[in-house]
Amino acid sequence: MATTKGPQELILTFMQDIYYAERQILKSLPKMAKAASNQQLKDAFMLHREETQGQVERLQRAFEALGKRARGQTCEAVNGLIEETEEIIEEFPEGEVRDAALAACAQAVEHYEIARYGALIAWAKASGLQDVVSLMEETLAEEKKTDELLNQMANKSLNQAAFKKAA
Amino acid sequence: MATTKGPQELILTFMQDIYYAERQILKSLPKMAKAASNQQLKDAFMLHREETQGQVERLQRAFEALGKRARGQTCEAVNGLIEETEEIIEEFPEGEVRDAALAACAQAVEHYEIARYGALIAWAKASGLQDVVSLMEETLAEEKKTDELLNQMANKSLNQAAFKKAA
Repeated sequence: MATTKGPQELILTFMQDIYYAERQILKSLPKMAKAASNQQLKDAFMLHREETQGQVERLQRAFEALGKRARGQTCEAVNGLIEETEEIIEEFPEGEVRDAALAACAQAVEHYEIARYGALIAWAKASGLQDVVSLMEETLAEEKKTDELLNQMANKSLNQAAFKKAA
Repeated sequence: MATTKGPQELILTFMQDIYYAERQILKSLPKMAKAASNQQLKDAFMLHREETQGQVERLQRAFEALGKRARGQTCEAVNGLIEETEEIIEEFPEGEVRDAALAACAQAVEHYEIARYGALIAWAKASGLQDVVSLMEETLAEEKKTDELLNQMANKSLNQAAFKKAA
């Protein structure tokens, strides 16, 4: 049956999805920091936890700018990403291999967020919602920086440490 | 309880995850093409379905290079991404808004794959598995091209069509 959902509802649906996702990530990052051995990786997860708190607040301001109540809608994708991370923690003992895996899992989460915020920014621009564009662009820049930081850590130290014996 | 899983098992785990994911994507793309209205978007989904078939075969060759049987392991992340896409199709009627959403959903899948193949390539390099590196690099280039193509379509036509009334 056809519904009447239109462009505004699409923006709202994606905002509710990423709002739920950010709050799940907020709970997941301290567990990832605890599961990591490498101090630099632990620090990166905790720093990103602080950033994520700010991202949740930006989303609340974006909902406000649209005259809507901030609310989340279950995001099965992020639930799946977090579940996979928890499986890795269960299956791989504390140490260098788990650290390399944790960085990769975090990068997969960043990529999900980059895709979602990228779409939201494009749609908010096309709809003339400048407040939403500015808020989401700040967050997108943080997500990209986090992905880049994890990439550098992986390439400079984590992967060499994890795979030296396999080479 | 500590396990004995090490670097080779990590590479294998990620390969089984993305092997499952690619085969789910193979089934999902024709449904997405059917749900789309825009002919260029339909064509992009069907072209990527063909590429995905080749990506499944490359993974089979990578398993072979490691002397392992190709097998998938349930990837909750891709299941979640596909579930979200199906919800969009249910909630948004056929037309321009659904098309903009479908392109964004496909980009989220591409981003997941880009993150996974990126990690696999780095790990295979660090382990000296040159055959696996070459195969995965071919696939990664295709995933990035698809993401870029969807981005161009979204920015040039889909988003304007979907959000013109909201502006």
